[in-house]
Amino acid sequence: MSKTDYNGKNVGFNGSASGILKIIDNPSAIELVVKGDVVMLPQKEGGADSLLPIYKTIKLGAVGIIRDSGKVDHGSIASKELGVPCVLMSSDFNKLKKHVGKIITINNEKIILGKHDQKQRKLPSNNKTTRSKVKINLGFPEIIQKYPLLAEQSDGVAFARLEFIMLDILQNTHPFSYINNYGEEKLSIEIAAKLKPILEQFQKHNKEVWIRTDDLSPELLIELKDGNKYEKREANTNTGWRGIRRSIKQPEMILPQFKAIQKLVDAGYTNIGLFPPMTYSHKEYMEWKRLAETVLDVKKIKLGLMVETPAAALTIEDFVQDIQFVVFGSNDLTQFTLAIDRNNPHLIEMFNEKEKAVLKLMKMVIDVCNRYNIETTIGGQAGSDEEMVDILLSYGISGVSVNPDPWTVDRVRRFIESKES
Amino acid sequence: MSKTDYNGKNVGFNGSASGILKIIDNPSAIELVVKGDVVMLPQKEGGADSLLPIYKTIKLGAVGIIRDSGKVDHGSIASKELGVPCVLMSSDFNKLKKHVGKIITINNEKIILGKHDQKQRKLPSNNKTTRSKVKINLGFPEIIQKYPLLAEQSDGVAFARLEFIMLDILQNTHPFSYINNYGEEKLSIEIAAKLKPILEQFQKHNKEVWIRTDDLSPELLIELKDGNKYEKREANTNTGWRGIRRSIKQPEMILPQFKAIQKLVDAGYTNIGLFPPMTYSHKEYMEWKRLAETVLDVKKIKLGLMVETPAAALTIEDFVQDIQFVVFGSNDLTQFTLAIDRNNPHLIEMFNEKEKAVLKLMKMVIDVCNRYNIETTIGGQAGSDEEMVDILLSYGISGVSVNPDPWTVDRVRRFIESKES
Repeated sequence: MSKTDYNGKNVGFNGSASGILKIIDNPSAIELVVKGDVVMLPQKEGGADSLLPIYKTIKLGAVGIIRDSGKVDHGSIASKELGVPCVLMSSDFNKLKKHVGKIITINNEKIILGKHDQKQRKLPSNNKTTRSKVKINLGFPEIIQKYPLLAEQSDGVAFARLEFIMLDILQNTHPFSYINNYGEEKLSIEIAAKLKPILEQFQKHNKEVWIRTDDLSPELLIELKDGNKYEKREANTNTGWRGIRRSIKQPEMILPQFKAIQKLVDAGYTNIGLFPPMTYSHKEYMEWKRLAETVLDVKKIKLGLMVETPAAALTIEDFVQDIQFVVFGSNDLTQFTLAIDRNNPHLIEMFNEKEKAVLKLMKMVIDVCNRYNIETTIGGQAGSDEEMVDILLSYGISGVSVNPDPWTVDRVRRFIESKES
Repeated sequence: MSKTDYNGKNVGFNGSASGILKIIDNPSAIELVVKGDVVMLPQKEGGADSLLPIYKTIKLGAVGIIRDSGKVDHGSIASKELGVPCVLMSSDFNKLKKHVGKIITINNEKIILGKHDQKQRKLPSNNKTTRSKVKINLGFPEIIQKYPLLAEQSDGVAFARLEFIMLDILQNTHPFSYINNYGEEKLSIEIAAKLKPILEQFQKHNKEVWIRTDDLSPELLIELKDGNKYEKREANTNTGWRGIRRSIKQPEMILPQFKAIQKLVDAGYTNIGLFPPMTYSHKEYMEWKRLAETVLDVKKIKLGLMVETPAAALTIEDFVQDIQFVVFGSNDLTQFTLAIDRNNPHLIEMFNEKEKAVLKLMKMVIDVCNRYNIETTIGGQAGSDEEMVDILLSYGISGVSVNPDPWTVDRVRRFIESKES
């Protein structure tokens, strides 16, 4: 093997890929990406969300992503869930630019010039069980087809984001235009069709799939076709017009999601959980629930709460009669609690999910939920962080939710097993 | 008196003004504002901060401000502190545009066409005392010269923002360029000179003045001369590169502020309190304190904490040995706790400082502070909201801080008196 030429940090899913190095340094450069490329994606100014460009790049066939930002954001989460290696570089990013057009290889943390075959990793065996649950984040149906083992190996899906599925269906068109063109019913059928293989695979094993309704932001939606007709840029998109607060005031986008769930209930799936993003009060949660009830028999599914605003954690007692599970959105909970934008280049070093204040909120929630037999799960990046998992297990959390690849599930399962023994 | 032609909501300081109506609908229109104008200022897209345009408009001599946003932001706070009537309109804003160029009159909540003299309001008498303190927010030294009564009538200054004074000194130049051109010492002398009349007036009455170090945001700084050299736009400015977190990493801007305080200590003022914005942990607070100690004898002043991040409230026990007072930044505390940008046009109705989660955090802080004899004060808009004051008095808060005009101080004093009797 050749010498290592550059180093970075591979986000969660270690993996390897070889391909022609391209760079997206202007909006039209994305059109030049073809199957098999490794793509450099510089961060937009001021820490704008990377979900859409990374998602598009991977859908065009990119096999590896290289970024100049040091922190995990929505884009790198998507690439991680899709099993595409995503390397975060710092100063080396600019040096790497001179190799654009040549073949390079990503090998876990390393970037090597030229093509280097990596040996295929062996799937882990499935022989471990733990009292605490090990679930997965799963937003892309293709992953469960790629690794059907996940349905045996994990304890279910704790966090299926509808954003990824929606983007796949919308094909770059704003949802309102999509609905105008094709009708709400078609959107609803498509969502159900995408969710079905996930539910099917886990139903076989008597395991649940918890689905989060969309958290598409104006910042992302405005980039879609007709986005300018329906969206305005926001000065503070993280605390903006999105998630549950938008769903209950502007139900056009959420109703097809609820209807899709009803179709799946009708199709016989009994393993569905549903929860909204960005809840800050029991009052708005109940409005969301009542809206769901207009098209969905919520008694046939489980309802849950994502705890990602400090307010939801502080008022958890209000929710206990209406929810059956809690998923922590630890990234957002941290950024609101500390008032630190996790994507701001100046603040990357300060962002820490293990800050005392954040842990205090999580402990408050776990204590209350344990009194009421409500399952609690840590989602997001924190679920794969052993130190964090250790702390939360000591608080009595029910389980963790990790990246949907057999190696991560295996690693976290082993870690928890070692703690429980 | 003529009929009322338009209605709006006058921010806090009721008042009246007549003048020629102008509108700032493009960046250069501000140059046309002259002394005596009443100026319409449409909100920037997505809820960007209005402090700089409103501040500039008033400094050019505007006697009244009319805005199309329904919510109080930094700009309207500045206009309120300066005693310039600021009317927030909704749909009527566009109708009013046709009167640009004509004389109009603001009379409290109302906008009347033509010139209408308002009778001068009589200063209230100063004959009330309460156990709970009634302090003032005071960022502009000229106000204490306009109303020296405030130093008798109030119990001190709980919230003197250095931003307003800094902007006045910088004369539209980025602080780094100002320091390059004139030196840090000059900036420090100027800050001390601006603070002196406030300290002087309150020292006479044995009352304290608590000064908050700057919270200038990149969003504002980038608009100043040379701003582009030093600042980048941020995707989420509310949770960005500002306040204490910037002070400790980039001390150029904070050191002249600390040095100004030392000059005032040297000049014999013994009534100074100092506190930073945006603190999220005791660790960063201590870094700020150690930085202060390099140029300032902190034993000669009081040190305090602004509680405006959920994290500061949740970890208040960590601070009790190092602080002598707490000021609640209820606007920010609310927006981070609820994850709601208070300036986002879609979310204005949802923003509520009396949400259970916010009150819970405040109660936690008041309980701890009362155990350690640390004075607690509610600043910002909430201090003038009687329902909020009532709740916080029941929690045992030490006092409130209100707009620096004799009528507001009198009204809040009477309200508290009625509660205490």
